[in-house]
Amino acid sequence: MSHWSDLVADKKRRQAESIPKEWLISPPPDTLLDVTAFPETCGLLTAHEIEITNTLVDVLLRKLASGEWTSVAVTTAFYKRAIIAHQLVNCLTEIFVDRALARAAELDAHLKTTGQVVGPLHGLPISLKDQLSIQGLETIMGYVSWIGKYAEKNAVLVDILIQCGAVPFVRTNVPQTLMWPETFNNIFGRTTNPYNRLLSSGGSSGGEGALVALKGSPLGVGSDIGGSVRIPANFCGLYGLRPSYGRVPYSGALNSLEGQDSVLSVFGPMTRSVSGLKAFMRAVVHAKPWLKDPLAVRKKWDEEEYRLADHGHGEKLCFAIMWDDGVVVPHPPVRRGLETVKAALLKAGHTVIEWQAWKHRELGDMTREIWNAASAEDYKVTTSATGEPIITSMALEPGPAVIAPFRPSKDGISAYQLWQVQKKRRMVRQEYTDLWEASVARTGTGRPIDAIICPAAPFTATPHGLNRYTNYTTVWNALDYPACVIPVSTVDPVLDAKKPAHAFIDDYDRKIYESYDPETFKNAPVCVQLVGRTLEEEAVIGMTELVAAALAQG
Amino acid sequence: MSHWSDLVADKKRRQAESIPKEWLISPPPDTLLDVTAFPETCGLLTAHEIEITNTLVDVLLRKLASGEWTSVAVTTAFYKRAIIAHQLVNCLTEIFVDRALARAAELDAHLKTTGQVVGPLHGLPISLKDQLSIQGLETIMGYVSWIGKYAEKNAVLVDILIQCGAVPFVRTNVPQTLMWPETFNNIFGRTTNPYNRLLSSGGSSGGEGALVALKGSPLGVGSDIGGSVRIPANFCGLYGLRPSYGRVPYSGALNSLEGQDSVLSVFGPMTRSVSGLKAFMRAVVHAKPWLKDPLAVRKKWDEEEYRLADHGHGEKLCFAIMWDDGVVVPHPPVRRGLETVKAALLKAGHTVIEWQAWKHRELGDMTREIWNAASAEDYKVTTSATGEPIITSMALEPGPAVIAPFRPSKDGISAYQLWQVQKKRRMVRQEYTDLWEASVARTGTGRPIDAIICPAAPFTATPHGLNRYTNYTTVWNALDYPACVIPVSTVDPVLDAKKPAHAFIDDYDRKIYESYDPETFKNAPVCVQLVGRTLEEEAVIGMTELVAAALAQG
Repeated sequence: MSHWSDLVADKKRRQAESIPKEWLISPPPDTLLDVTAFPETCGLLTAHEIEITNTLVDVLLRKLASGEWTSVAVTTAFYKRAIIAHQLVNCLTEIFVDRALARAAELDAHLKTTGQVVGPLHGLPISLKDQLSIQGLETIMGYVSWIGKYAEKNAVLVDILIQCGAVPFVRTNVPQTLMWPETFNNIFGRTTNPYNRLLSSGGSSGGEGALVALKGSPLGVGSDIGGSVRIPANFCGLYGLRPSYGRVPYSGALNSLEGQDSVLSVFGPMTRSVSGLKAFMRAVVHAKPWLKDPLAVRKKWDEEEYRLADHGHGEKLCFAIMWDDGVVVPHPPVRRGLETVKAALLKAGHTVIEWQAWKHRELGDMTREIWNAASAEDYKVTTSATGEPIITSMALEPGPAVIAPFRPSKDGISAYQLWQVQKKRRMVRQEYTDLWEASVARTGTGRPIDAIICPAAPFTATPHGLNRYTNYTTVWNALDYPACVIPVSTVDPVLDAKKPAHAFIDDYDRKIYESYDPETFKNAPVCVQLVGRTLEEEAVIGMTELVAAALAQG
Repeated sequence: MSHWSDLVADKKRRQAESIPKEWLISPPPDTLLDVTAFPETCGLLTAHEIEITNTLVDVLLRKLASGEWTSVAVTTAFYKRAIIAHQLVNCLTEIFVDRALARAAELDAHLKTTGQVVGPLHGLPISLKDQLSIQGLETIMGYVSWIGKYAEKNAVLVDILIQCGAVPFVRTNVPQTLMWPETFNNIFGRTTNPYNRLLSSGGSSGGEGALVALKGSPLGVGSDIGGSVRIPANFCGLYGLRPSYGRVPYSGALNSLEGQDSVLSVFGPMTRSVSGLKAFMRAVVHAKPWLKDPLAVRKKWDEEEYRLADHGHGEKLCFAIMWDDGVVVPHPPVRRGLETVKAALLKAGHTVIEWQAWKHRELGDMTREIWNAASAEDYKVTTSATGEPIITSMALEPGPAVIAPFRPSKDGISAYQLWQVQKKRRMVRQEYTDLWEASVARTGTGRPIDAIICPAAPFTATPHGLNRYTNYTTVWNALDYPACVIPVSTVDPVLDAKKPAHAFIDDYDRKIYESYDPETFKNAPVCVQLVGRTLEEEAVIGMTELVAAALAQG
């Protein structure tokens, strides 16, 4: 058997060969940190391709459905820009240009012949995280040991997207094991942040985050077990939705920690507009995924819920803002993001009250205890086929000083011990439900709070290896609340100057707070997170739209 | 601390004192096996009380809502009959007459004053399995160690039933641990089958099964993790629905194996008519349990699905009959039940095709492996408070020869081992989904099969201690398919004579087949099971109604 590094070399060679020569660019120097303007100035894209790739999902779908733009034109434009993005931030894994363009041509022919679209996503190129198997392609997922394993069939979600008329066109980079909030592995290396390449793109869907931010894809699919859609959305300035367990089909996708039935990974959309979130979720749910995936929830898309029928029909909502989680106080730009949203909501006529975090530290600890009940053995078994090294840090130069949030415990625990943690978690889920219901006394709307607005992390995109705290996203996975990241601003050294220290909660809080420096974090996107109730994806999208509209007015 | 047997003696004394003296009867001799006629002949019930207790749920609700019958009258009638039933088959645990009648009187006053019902179950007495905590009462659940633990609040389901206008009026017996398919514990002893007291009432909701069969309750709530609603429904000749995970709220109820997040227990209704199933499910789901229970699924009651919108609107359905599961071939009366249903469906114009069991043995084994990953430790910890004996058999005289289907393994397994079993189970769930979808090629309806009709056990109610095979129900828990028991007939020594043996699958199959004797099983109810797809409770009830109507015509 080959040495693991030979397998890597072979895969990298094959990846390089999959890039059309004519799409290779002269990359900018590493010292160019913000590369977001580069795709449009490098000379590879035509004016029309620039126009296409600057267009948001709802308009793209309209122009594709009317035949004004062909799928071949749209797919080509995004593919070229994706390949540019890859040369800037190293975001892709599988590249299959001919196959995608052939599919696009089929769709164009269908529309021309029948006058009908194939489905609600007709002609739209969609990028996929490197778990979503496509027949005939490898699904490597950051594991050397999975090089050369070609999928015999599509993941259910891929089938559904195809049935909806979409064009899966690239797959995107992830960290080994998926259980890191940054993106680095032994095969494809590291994905960096297009707003500042010294910063992380987040993870584990960091390839998607970087690609979509560079407009190399109009819509990407990430997965989220502890924040893996929302962390890269937060770091890269995107809308990113973490749906409830089972709302989007997972069957047939590869994953880590398989058989862990408690805190489940879910797929969700990452895109530059609320319209993209809605188009994806509506199309996928309309396709009745529960007929194909035993874990998909049989709940129809509810347009009334989207129109906020359960939330005053969008009039005079009451949002709760959680400024911090009682564990780590956010950096100044994150605070400013929340203040901006609060002001916009008040101006739009809504009410904003305070939300006190309830056992967030405990929820995060329990969740990691559940994953780590057997994660070390899971990783060991998976990597044993090739002897590839298990990565122990996301830092540029891994060292023992780095605190890794998802490090597995050395030994697993017993099933009984696991059940006791799961039982404790269920009790906190009940307490949170009760607290949410009890908020009716404080809202003045006759309803409990409509949503929680909170940070998606205590910081904006961090330098590589320093994304050490993920509870701001993980708690909502533990509670199974749908949550959406909303972009607000970017770090501005003037607006976001260092602030006098608060009374530190503990040394951990102090260390994270002191790591802030406006120059280090310069230009990083600033986002907030909106959190709704379980299986209320429709309303979460509706409320995200409302917040985005308020911000646009503000 | 008291010896465990002192605690038992005290509880039994208190239970005896909770029975109004004037409701004590002269019980029939033990040699009277079929006691179903006894309540109406023992002289305690008035003609009106007999009329009330013979009335099905839909008519009861109509008469209660119109004020034609008061809740006090209806609750009194069922309470008296429940106390009679208890003296015949030992089915009750908590008895609280004054409290229930006071609640009934409040409801009557409300209706009189306002002209309005409190909710869709206005005035209806409902019996509850001994897990569903009621504020101020003990929830003993077959554990001596839980004697004297008084609930500080109601289970969420109890709150919802009360909010719907129901009158919780008794709680019913269970086996210690709940993980047995018969009903016997160290406190309350054994519940027997009203059709033949030498036979088991089934379990773990065996108290409910016996009580509802004797018309001591119009509607009971059982729970089902491997068949615990359907086995007593099958043994006692009732309709019994096992809903999908999370369709009915579980929060606040006591349980075994807490923290086991994989194959979940669910609550479901047990009653003498399809109207009772529908009234319960519709009322509970309308109450939005997801606002109060974090595990309850946010899926509205869908009246269109109940009217079989996804199943040809009830015209020309295609049912698949599974005659046996490839492990144990059913006894002759069970076969006759299936044949009766098949003939009735064909006569009603539906199609019936065959269903081959897919990995049912493996599904059953996996499910027990998941429960037993830590069940031994769970039972040990629970019983250690008083040192009560852990029951090792449901037989009249426990002995080592008895094969117990739910016996925990001596030692638990690791979390990693548990994940591997859970992973295997998920794969079989996928395979079953694919098989169901693929059946579209065989139905002639353009749809996959609408439902599976199969046995609920390979036998009718067994002698005590001999209910040794539960896979006919457990596989559907493993697959999370809603399933409903439908009564068809009773064992008739002439119609159900011994049949020539089939080619036995193995010695286990032979032993179970040879245990059949028409005299032993005489008068036991004969039922079938109807199985639908996950979260399709509405359609399962609609199809159950359709089967019941076909049987009534047949």
